[in-house]
Amino acid sequence: MSPKMTTELLKQLRQVMKSPKYVQEPVQAYIVPSGDAHQSEYIAPCDCRRAFISGFDGSAGTAIVTEQHAAMWTDGRYFLQAAHQMDNNWTLMKMGLKDTPTQEDWLVSVLPEGSKVGVDPFIIPADQWKRMSKALRNAGHDLVPVKENLIDTIWTDCPQRPCKPLITLDLSYTGVSWRDKIVALRAKMAERKVLWFVVTALDEVAWLFNLRGSDVEYNPVFFAYAVIGMNTIRLFIDGDRMMDPAVREHLQLNSTLEPEFKIQVMPYGSILSELQAVGAGLSPKEKVWLSDKASYALTEAIPKAYRYLTPYTPICIAKAVKNTSETEGMRRAHIKDAVALCELFNWLDKEVPKGTVTEIIAADKAEEFRSQQKDFVELSFATISSTGPNGAIIHYKPVPETNRTLSVNEIYLLDSGAQYKDGTTDVTRTMHFGTPSAYEKECFTCVLKGHIAVSAAIFPNGTKGHLLDSFARSALWDCGLDYLHGTGHGVGSFLNVHEGPCGISYKTFADEPLEAGMIVSDEPGYYEDGSFGIRIENVVLVVPAETKYNFKNRGSLTFEPLTLVPIQTKMIDVNLLTQKECNWVNDYHQKCREVIGAELERQGRHEALRWLIRETEPLIRVQ
Amino acid sequence: MSPKMTTELLKQLRQVMKSPKYVQEPVQAYIVPSGDAHQSEYIAPCDCRRAFISGFDGSAGTAIVTEQHAAMWTDGRYFLQAAHQMDNNWTLMKMGLKDTPTQEDWLVSVLPEGSKVGVDPFIIPADQWKRMSKALRNAGHDLVPVKENLIDTIWTDCPQRPCKPLITLDLSYTGVSWRDKIVALRAKMAERKVLWFVVTALDEVAWLFNLRGSDVEYNPVFFAYAVIGMNTIRLFIDGDRMMDPAVREHLQLNSTLEPEFKIQVMPYGSILSELQAVGAGLSPKEKVWLSDKASYALTEAIPKAYRYLTPYTPICIAKAVKNTSETEGMRRAHIKDAVALCELFNWLDKEVPKGTVTEIIAADKAEEFRSQQKDFVELSFATISSTGPNGAIIHYKPVPETNRTLSVNEIYLLDSGAQYKDGTTDVTRTMHFGTPSAYEKECFTCVLKGHIAVSAAIFPNGTKGHLLDSFARSALWDCGLDYLHGTGHGVGSFLNVHEGPCGISYKTFADEPLEAGMIVSDEPGYYEDGSFGIRIENVVLVVPAETKYNFKNRGSLTFEPLTLVPIQTKMIDVNLLTQKECNWVNDYHQKCREVIGAELERQGRHEALRWLIRETEPLIRVQ
Repeated sequence: MSPKMTTELLKQLRQVMKSPKYVQEPVQAYIVPSGDAHQSEYIAPCDCRRAFISGFDGSAGTAIVTEQHAAMWTDGRYFLQAAHQMDNNWTLMKMGLKDTPTQEDWLVSVLPEGSKVGVDPFIIPADQWKRMSKALRNAGHDLVPVKENLIDTIWTDCPQRPCKPLITLDLSYTGVSWRDKIVALRAKMAERKVLWFVVTALDEVAWLFNLRGSDVEYNPVFFAYAVIGMNTIRLFIDGDRMMDPAVREHLQLNSTLEPEFKIQVMPYGSILSELQAVGAGLSPKEKVWLSDKASYALTEAIPKAYRYLTPYTPICIAKAVKNTSETEGMRRAHIKDAVALCELFNWLDKEVPKGTVTEIIAADKAEEFRSQQKDFVELSFATISSTGPNGAIIHYKPVPETNRTLSVNEIYLLDSGAQYKDGTTDVTRTMHFGTPSAYEKECFTCVLKGHIAVSAAIFPNGTKGHLLDSFARSALWDCGLDYLHGTGHGVGSFLNVHEGPCGISYKTFADEPLEAGMIVSDEPGYYEDGSFGIRIENVVLVVPAETKYNFKNRGSLTFEPLTLVPIQTKMIDVNLLTQKECNWVNDYHQKCREVIGAELERQGRHEALRWLIRETEPLIRVQ
Repeated sequence: MSPKMTTELLKQLRQVMKSPKYVQEPVQAYIVPSGDAHQSEYIAPCDCRRAFISGFDGSAGTAIVTEQHAAMWTDGRYFLQAAHQMDNNWTLMKMGLKDTPTQEDWLVSVLPEGSKVGVDPFIIPADQWKRMSKALRNAGHDLVPVKENLIDTIWTDCPQRPCKPLITLDLSYTGVSWRDKIVALRAKMAERKVLWFVVTALDEVAWLFNLRGSDVEYNPVFFAYAVIGMNTIRLFIDGDRMMDPAVREHLQLNSTLEPEFKIQVMPYGSILSELQAVGAGLSPKEKVWLSDKASYALTEAIPKAYRYLTPYTPICIAKAVKNTSETEGMRRAHIKDAVALCELFNWLDKEVPKGTVTEIIAADKAEEFRSQQKDFVELSFATISSTGPNGAIIHYKPVPETNRTLSVNEIYLLDSGAQYKDGTTDVTRTMHFGTPSAYEKECFTCVLKGHIAVSAAIFPNGTKGHLLDSFARSALWDCGLDYLHGTGHGVGSFLNVHEGPCGISYKTFADEPLEAGMIVSDEPGYYEDGSFGIRIENVVLVVPAETKYNFKNRGSLTFEPLTLVPIQTKMIDVNLLTQKECNWVNDYHQKCREVIGAELERQGRHEALRWLIRETEPLIRVQ
């Protein structure tokens, strides 16, 4: 993969940064965050402005361009990828390393006195604006909103904003109707004494109305906002998708409903003026609830005294705790997903030794097997199919320039998942199709010990996920090893594969406590630059745990794996496992055999079934 | 212990809250924090205002008195003690429990519209002022500084502020001269581009000047502030202690020094006006560095634009990393401390069965043995000597009303420590002088497993202590047990037994990373209200760890116990230990035998030596 040549683009950007056509006063720096107006992690092509200006297209990163410099902040997952994709105009700022300056500190160190720093107010979240604005002001600079996005002004072939048809989800999938979700939301609003709630995150709009879309690849969401009052529901959405009879029926747009459940449909672009009108009409003590991650533009629409900002919205928290219909759907989706992966790995076992399978072919084959399963919609993220040194690029995606052939001499890492109408999957398995070295097995076994330590952990109700992160690292730390990413993220139910407000990471502290019904990933890893990558990932459901005692009657929780795909025993040095860990692997494989075996049988996939049986032979530990 | 009767006092306080003699306008609520003007944890009797008004004298707690209510916030260590010590005028607010409101939320819920909330601006830290003031303002109330402390106005027999002689410490104890500490501090100031640094914490003043005092019980500090400029040193201190020739010599007050090392001695009470003068004389870009925990009064003395606030001062961070002279001193202190405890436990083994040893007698005996050791100064905190149900009161201190007799039927918990001129100790051992039940042994063994998990943990350089907290709880969590306090705190070197900026707790996130040379405690526990308390505490030194690999060349750390006192093997259910844990106990006891045995021998304490040998017999695990 050769880096994008950005000299000309940066020259153009620096021109518009001074052009009175776009800025009231010249800006000495311009920030290009990776998000869209909804602070989405995955974004539509028209919103990939940071990738356009820099060439770096990982899912997380912020570019800042000054008159002299261009710098890119990204995290450990993307250090190698960003270094590959960017040309020499760019300086890579490795977040999480001790000596890397924050964006604010760096700006202060390079800017001339009294500088103006521009940013699109629709793209920057209000909390970031606040932090950055304060730091810049303290150093004598100013953060200024630039209404017209400066990247868009130089992006001549920018694609159109997508506007695809919607999918309606009935009660058998969602468990709760959109009306009941509105009722519950209004109860939360009443509790906090707020009159209005602004839904800005795309997955929150989708969840609230039991609708799905396909405006953003991998995430079944659609461009929309919603503003919920105590007696009104406004949905801001474009296109003729509201003409679809199924959607009209689902939202009861033609029915004579009680007024408080009547949905007013408005143009997507009218959100700012509508919100300003709401803001202007407020009486003292009337509050509007927004996420503190909502855009600066929308937050500013509500006068400060009337804002009620929280890090997690009530929808975000309600969405994270899955009901029985959702967990049953997630179980079904994971069974189907495991069937597809058994087929894939059986096929790879046969084909890899022939030397004809590349990373891209393997990824395509995985998609092919998944697409054969019922209610398959699309992938849930770009498949990471990586062999040998590519495995060390944590969020690698194979492209023709880097595409490597799988062989019996290298470790293969596959991190993949899909959207099914009944659930979202995300699973990583690391395989060797020949004979792994003792060192590779040692590293794999340390990662596995970490995976088990989290998966089997018992912890009190009310524990936040970040308190479990070190369990995943302990075995690696003992050998002097580690990995530079968090251990787990929340997973949506036929929604975004990454969602808040819970997760398992040393980096967060403000996560919400884990609760029964929440679903997260458990994915420790180990990566050796230039050599290989190892990761073992299951999606796990938080469930109540039985314990011998019950301190302060708090109750305990643990995890139940939803992912049921064999963990390659060939990679395990069984003598490094404790008996308890060994039993965990054997019990897990027994469950894979029973549950996935039955489904493979049902689907008549006998060869894959034989593969499953072979791969789930119990480990025997020599004392 | 009967509660303090506070009806009359609260009546008087509510009168002065409305008296134009003390307040410009009546205040509807008055906050009484537990700190002094230096935000000390342990305070002089004249500063025990919260204890005076409420009766609750634990080390942490905040009282708020309104016209109708009186409420006390404290943490899990003190729930039982506070409930015992306060009368029915007071509502106990149990911090850390889910349903307990914050002080701000509670105030907002009880205050009439547009209320004024008063607080002493010298007592409240600036960061707390800011948070509270904002929350109150958002709800239409005002936080106002009340210059005269309202408790002092009703406290007719308030004791005098102490002003005791100073101790000078030479290089053999401190390793670094005060001049070199000033040079290092000025280098840090230059790095951050600040011109002034204000030393407000008492232990920071003491550390900086290599002086110790005894103004506050258990903490070898003295009332003073310091203001360090790039060319000036001002020490604000009262009394004739600056007349002591040893102190004058130590500080070179009579020498003709380079002007930048000449110490100007000023009255303690002149800090505010001097700081206001500094503030008034600043030019743009000239900054004054203060802890964000410095008092609101001192922080306000510097105009906002000139303030440079950090959670941890450069002195706090430098002080935490002990140099070789300090760690060697800490080792010596811990050896002497272990000798005293071997004597004590040997004595208890003989005396407890006679039924004549009370908690107070045992605590006094511990002090007696400690005081026989070289360079003993005083205790480092009030001895927690507690048997049976008293052990469940986490920060219990025996008093005649609660004093219980040790017996062969109850668990005995002793948490004690001392100040020696060469170091500070803090150790907890839990003992049974008869035959513990299987359940008691199970609980003790879970706590021990947690203690070992932290003590033996290997972790990368740069790891923050809070990431290790869950290791201490994992074995307890597995059984459904837990404890409601952090796992460890920083320990000073002949200074405060609790110090920042590092520790091991689920409650903090802003702790500084652990570094080789830092010293913390490792003290998990388990407490059963009304029955017993268990805690196992060592003071441990952060040391480099050898590992098989070295990811990203970061290097690894682990802990070396400085405390070398046997852990009662009678309380251990050896079959619950892994072989690794069993080896840890045996290695630890072997070291106790060697190091403490040699010292007992040298001191001719043969009976205690025999006790030590008996108590350190290796455990044997039945496979």
